[in-house]
Amino acid sequence: MHELHFAVPMAGAVICTLNTRHDSAMLSVLLRHSEAKVIFVDYQLLEIARGALDLLVSTESKLPILVLVPESDDSSQTTITSDTYEYERLLASGHTEFSIRRPRNELDPISVNYTSGTTSLPKGVVYSHRGAYLNAFATFFLHGMGSMPVYLWTVPMFHCNGWCLIWGLTALGGTNICLRSVSPKAIFQNIALHKVTHMGGAPTVLNMIVNSPSNDRCPLPHKVEVMTGGAPPPPQILLKMEELGFGLSHLYGLTETYGPGTSCVWKPEWDSLPQDERLKLKARQGVQHLGLEEVDIKDSITMKSIPADGKTVGEVMFRGNTVMSGYLKDLEATQEAFRGGWFRSGDLAVKHPDGYIEVKDRSKDIIISGGENISSVEVETTLFSHPAVLEAAVVARPDDHWGQTPCAFVKLKEGFSVDAQEVIKFCRDRLPHYMAPRTVIFEDLPKTSTGKVQKFVLREKAKALGSLSKWKE
Amino acid sequence: MHELHFAVPMAGAVICTLNTRHDSAMLSVLLRHSEAKVIFVDYQLLEIARGALDLLVSTESKLPILVLVPESDDSSQTTITSDTYEYERLLASGHTEFSIRRPRNELDPISVNYTSGTTSLPKGVVYSHRGAYLNAFATFFLHGMGSMPVYLWTVPMFHCNGWCLIWGLTALGGTNICLRSVSPKAIFQNIALHKVTHMGGAPTVLNMIVNSPSNDRCPLPHKVEVMTGGAPPPPQILLKMEELGFGLSHLYGLTETYGPGTSCVWKPEWDSLPQDERLKLKARQGVQHLGLEEVDIKDSITMKSIPADGKTVGEVMFRGNTVMSGYLKDLEATQEAFRGGWFRSGDLAVKHPDGYIEVKDRSKDIIISGGENISSVEVETTLFSHPAVLEAAVVARPDDHWGQTPCAFVKLKEGFSVDAQEVIKFCRDRLPHYMAPRTVIFEDLPKTSTGKVQKFVLREKAKALGSLSKWKE
Repeated sequence: MHELHFAVPMAGAVICTLNTRHDSAMLSVLLRHSEAKVIFVDYQLLEIARGALDLLVSTESKLPILVLVPESDDSSQTTITSDTYEYERLLASGHTEFSIRRPRNELDPISVNYTSGTTSLPKGVVYSHRGAYLNAFATFFLHGMGSMPVYLWTVPMFHCNGWCLIWGLTALGGTNICLRSVSPKAIFQNIALHKVTHMGGAPTVLNMIVNSPSNDRCPLPHKVEVMTGGAPPPPQILLKMEELGFGLSHLYGLTETYGPGTSCVWKPEWDSLPQDERLKLKARQGVQHLGLEEVDIKDSITMKSIPADGKTVGEVMFRGNTVMSGYLKDLEATQEAFRGGWFRSGDLAVKHPDGYIEVKDRSKDIIISGGENISSVEVETTLFSHPAVLEAAVVARPDDHWGQTPCAFVKLKEGFSVDAQEVIKFCRDRLPHYMAPRTVIFEDLPKTSTGKVQKFVLREKAKALGSLSKWKE
Repeated sequence: MHELHFAVPMAGAVICTLNTRHDSAMLSVLLRHSEAKVIFVDYQLLEIARGALDLLVSTESKLPILVLVPESDDSSQTTITSDTYEYERLLASGHTEFSIRRPRNELDPISVNYTSGTTSLPKGVVYSHRGAYLNAFATFFLHGMGSMPVYLWTVPMFHCNGWCLIWGLTALGGTNICLRSVSPKAIFQNIALHKVTHMGGAPTVLNMIVNSPSNDRCPLPHKVEVMTGGAPPPPQILLKMEELGFGLSHLYGLTETYGPGTSCVWKPEWDSLPQDERLKLKARQGVQHLGLEEVDIKDSITMKSIPADGKTVGEVMFRGNTVMSGYLKDLEATQEAFRGGWFRSGDLAVKHPDGYIEVKDRSKDIIISGGENISSVEVETTLFSHPAVLEAAVVARPDDHWGQTPCAFVKLKEGFSVDAQEVIKFCRDRLPHYMAPRTVIFEDLPKTSTGKVQKFVLREKAKALGSLSKWKE
């Protein structure tokens, strides 16, 4: 995948990386939608790819050429059928004098990234050469990267083209450390072995690290800078990561903004604040990066900027070079996303008096109970502060009386036991009464491959539970 | 000057910073050529500015409005005449609701920089908004700057808009430390006081630092990264700077390339090389920065790339976003500079097998003696290795027999005494015979305000000496 990020654009084509967790059905939908001409397949995913091609045959769609990246360079160990190319052999048949097909226009597409599914319908987000170049620059700064960084990939490369770092690390003379599967042991070992300087980490990965058994850990060779995003990191996890010797930066963005668009840039004067205040500040989404023209919080109807009072909620909106060109073959969704001249994130946030933004929730994740807005993020943060809680997600449960009530899905740490009443009481002691969950369900949380909790799955479950209150007339 | 770098472009105007060492005559020429509408003048330069305006009056040119930046904020101490505004009072009369006049096109000019005169005729180099933005990004990386650097200005801000760092440092939340006059004592004191992390330094400034009396020095709070350029730094100075605790990066570029265009990016494997090899590598100009499309060494006639053999000499050529838009009101010079589709630097260089470039000389600084090319830089490097030599510059002296012979201008360190014969012998022991100077003149070297030796002045002097050899038929 790393090599293809260079080879495909240099051949004048557009790279479309596909989520390695898709099944054959989803894969066939995306291959058809993207009109892929060639599909490069890692040996571990060959069966899924073949399944997708079979489905394409059955719908009489045009088939892409399949190129297999085999387990071993020794191709005698791989079974190649007549309709399949083998990667290294294909490369060997190329012309060394091939001259790079540069984009005719800097706004030409370089990649398509299908949104990874916190909703169930992926959309093809188009990036341009210009945007990718500028986002690589901007991402260096978010990471505080100098010359020749050593980067550990735990966030998949297919996710937003690795925030454009696949291209960017090469420009910096960097080293890429890749893992076939992410585990705390592999993370610690690779950091020590390769003297990793920077890594990305979804909340799930951070959670994995801080809850790892001590014999899976080894000492860090130096402070390792970790960029996290996806969801505001719970303060408890931030704190434990720092205790382990990681430096944590909190980034925020969407596939549509080439990955990170804002960063909670740390001010030196905050170092001397009490711990709880520091952690609260660190959970903010912060300020826009240098590749964007502007990030603002606006009233989604009037398009007016909301006041920087830390209270008024508006929608996070982006504009600039590192905002997608649009959704592939979906003019309607593109127009809707850019209605009013800004890219509308669907995230609800406040702006603090110092200009730092803080995301309160996804529009669709907000819970409205008895007319009061409840930020699912705030309830989750409280749940995370319970010593027995490993993972938590809060969604709306429909309610005949209140409209909605907060419903918590919780995964406990191994060896811990606690019941719903205890969890509810814990929250009521720490939150306004109406914000505490009315329902607590203990189970493993469904996640996307980038570690985001699939709230739409949980919302369906909460809906199926029916109303908690009886309707009183 | 720092404030105006923001205010002028945000008012929709173009900033033209003028060299603070110009006299009234030169200033009047540049004011007329640039058609400046307003001139902002520091109190120390008021008389020179008034002299320039008087000259404009005498040629019946249109006069710019003069705005005085007084010594003290207490304006009662300043004498303001009726035709002069006072800076703070002018600001106070502005409208707070003024909305920024953004460029209509990103290629609109943001600044004009008059080349500072290694030749005697300044040309107005035009920068664009797009180029300035990208050069700021690229310069961060050359400097290894992260969030909130503390930058000490020893290279004047009027020089290439401070390599676009005036804008860039603000984007990084940086701190600017400015000096009214540059001295080793002031440099060391400000580094210690403000915990300076980065600074620029022309060769003269480095020379000043390494030759400073020890009681002018104070310990550095941490490693201070110094970016040097203008001329390849002599190895002896590089070494002494490192001993003092500075980290040195060697940059190369021209006003026409927004300042630095290449950097001698240091490879970790070079750390273990013997000292003389390390110093030789460090004096290379290196590889292009990330804001440029391409830097190449080409045959200036055929425009073909020269082989990367470390021997073949060609001309350094640039293309990309951080190359000037052109020379103001000088189509002929612009066309000549871009002949063949590349910006032609006039510098002669080789390309090493690893792709790093090494500048041998300015085309016009090369000395041709008996048909052999002599790099004045190589002779200067040898002169610098003499313990008594503080400064040295070598130019061609016309010669009836050899065509040209190398003529050295040397400034000795205080308390040292050495004669011409000794200097010549020192060089002959270390260089091919034909490369050693035939003439040595001891004197202070004439310099531009950015610390470059004014070789055209020395060339005139050498020419005036006449031929050393008698013409033999």
